[in-house]
Amino acid sequence: MTTQHPIFFTPGPAALYPTVQGHYEEAFRQNLGSISHRSAAFRKIYQHTDEQLRELFQLPKENAILFTGSATEVWERVIMNTVEHESFHLVNGSFSTKFYNFAQELHKFAHCFKKPFGEGFDAAEIEVPAYAELICCTTNETSSGVQMPAKEIHKLKKANKNKFVVVDMVSSAPYTHLDFNLVDSAFFSVQKAFGMPAGLGVWIANEAMLEKSERMKKHEGVIGTYHSLPSLWENYKNFETPETPNVMAIYVLGKVAEDFNRIGVDVMRKEIDKKAKTLYDFAQKSSQYDIFVENESHRSATVVVLNCKEAASSVIQKVKEKSGMIVGSGYGKMKETQIRIANFPAVNLEQVQQLIDTLNTI
Amino acid sequence: MTTQHPIFFTPGPAALYPTVQGHYEEAFRQNLGSISHRSAAFRKIYQHTDEQLRELFQLPKENAILFTGSATEVWERVIMNTVEHESFHLVNGSFSTKFYNFAQELHKFAHCFKKPFGEGFDAAEIEVPAYAELICCTTNETSSGVQMPAKEIHKLKKANKNKFVVVDMVSSAPYTHLDFNLVDSAFFSVQKAFGMPAGLGVWIANEAMLEKSERMKKHEGVIGTYHSLPSLWENYKNFETPETPNVMAIYVLGKVAEDFNRIGVDVMRKEIDKKAKTLYDFAQKSSQYDIFVENESHRSATVVVLNCKEAASSVIQKVKEKSGMIVGSGYGKMKETQIRIANFPAVNLEQVQQLIDTLNTI
Repeated sequence: MTTQHPIFFTPGPAALYPTVQGHYEEAFRQNLGSISHRSAAFRKIYQHTDEQLRELFQLPKENAILFTGSATEVWERVIMNTVEHESFHLVNGSFSTKFYNFAQELHKFAHCFKKPFGEGFDAAEIEVPAYAELICCTTNETSSGVQMPAKEIHKLKKANKNKFVVVDMVSSAPYTHLDFNLVDSAFFSVQKAFGMPAGLGVWIANEAMLEKSERMKKHEGVIGTYHSLPSLWENYKNFETPETPNVMAIYVLGKVAEDFNRIGVDVMRKEIDKKAKTLYDFAQKSSQYDIFVENESHRSATVVVLNCKEAASSVIQKVKEKSGMIVGSGYGKMKETQIRIANFPAVNLEQVQQLIDTLNTI
Repeated sequence: MTTQHPIFFTPGPAALYPTVQGHYEEAFRQNLGSISHRSAAFRKIYQHTDEQLRELFQLPKENAILFTGSATEVWERVIMNTVEHESFHLVNGSFSTKFYNFAQELHKFAHCFKKPFGEGFDAAEIEVPAYAELICCTTNETSSGVQMPAKEIHKLKKANKNKFVVVDMVSSAPYTHLDFNLVDSAFFSVQKAFGMPAGLGVWIANEAMLEKSERMKKHEGVIGTYHSLPSLWENYKNFETPETPNVMAIYVLGKVAEDFNRIGVDVMRKEIDKKAKTLYDFAQKSSQYDIFVENESHRSATVVVLNCKEAASSVIQKVKEKSGMIVGSGYGKMKETQIRIANFPAVNLEQVQQLIDTLNTI
């Protein structure tokens, strides 16, 4: 293919990771669109993806890696499967709000600790309600560019050992270095930092969650059907899925994770840090752009949100015309005042520098 | 691509339709893995797919076309969204059994009319329980090769006008010619007759179902979250989806439906009939293979199931060695005694003849 693709700095769907299209072509060569999901060939694919993700996330043996249609689906499934009565949510943006709303729609008693758009959470200030069964954190509010650092999530779990902690790491996996011996569950979708086309959610969960879900089912709870935790897990034991899954995406995810492991996740994290610093340093000095998130320790490394002096739509248009690069608009009400720049592995330092040069001269 | 692909006669995932890989390549060229699902570009894609499927299925204006992760997901969603208390299921194989089990797992009072594996239903013999809200039919039991003809489903609806009829047409769409002015809902997945890689479910539903779902929600029913009928429908009005969907598959489905419409669905149906007749005629004359489904009017046109004198695994192995063709094994307990031959649009009459020649000489 010789087509020149524009560089996407959008926060999701995002730029494809450079190897992704080749992996899809290989999937077609191997007839992965036609093989049975009950075949040894499929089980081998699931197993490979499982192994590569285990290495990438340093997962303990007791965790399962399960597949859904999207990360949005996991919001629903994790609540249905592990919350009998009460959940607790850290809410500071559009996506954490939706997670909280899902719990309400499922008729759970959902508590929340709410902060204004653009602010983040530290463990020390969080008081978890006594009867909350599940604590829902978001490592990276894609809407506002606020992150919750892994160490704060770890502290939160240590202070609430008898409660489950689930982490929405949609737009930060695998950057956020979670300790899966502490957190009980995490999930992400593939169209963010993994640089794949959308259509697959990944749900990591531990055995304690499975047991809770089984207990809820036994006590006449409705935990869903094919994508209940017990159903997903039972199939996972044989590297199968309850339904015919997105086989090609499961294959490509395994190959991308393999690419990531070859580079080394620590090297990738440092690269992201370096690009993030470059972007924030630029904004600090700029007279045209301001960093939106004030508290430095809450600034996201993977989604950089900047306030614009000029109308954001005009900035986006000019960047596109000048360099062919696509920058994300602000989320919701911030559409006209902010731009969002995804800092995922698919874009390198040179491209970030190119973007900065463009932003400086438009 | 010059690789020689084997011909898959498996009933799903199945052979890719010949144009599918090209459509995926075009999707990559157009950066569809990176575009926003809240962009005009995506809305245009959804709208195109909607228009092509409307033409293919001759849908009335009042029906919506909604996307899920799989047809399996629709089993769950349609029950959660339209059954307050009681559902009724026609059960005669593994897939209709699962649909029935989903209703039980969701704590509905699920009635069923059960027939042995290999037998089908006529409308005249079906008595629907008085309080059943939803009648669940399967046009094609992929496990046994039994079909329920459209005209029997239409009679069933006419005799039960005050109840919803939903049709699982997973392995028969768009062959089964349903009248969507009569049936309320139908669904399928793309890895069967549409010849695409798996990872997308398509759910057609009418406004009466939406209203029921909204009523249930108002009366404190739990109808799910992002993929509830009201949520899917609200987004559909703008050709959007609640979550980031499988954009590429939605695009490719629209292009395949366009390919189908260019040929004409009636021409395609006749072609399937001709291939089915060829396969059944062959089995009738053969001393090695017997047609499994005795009642001729219940024999599936799209999934032909044959009893084998020889072990089925050995037949499958020999066919593969001799011709490179892949035939499906019998489902579940029938693995060793039956073969299943998918008769989808992706395979033509010549290839069917080639398969028959091979089956005749091994």
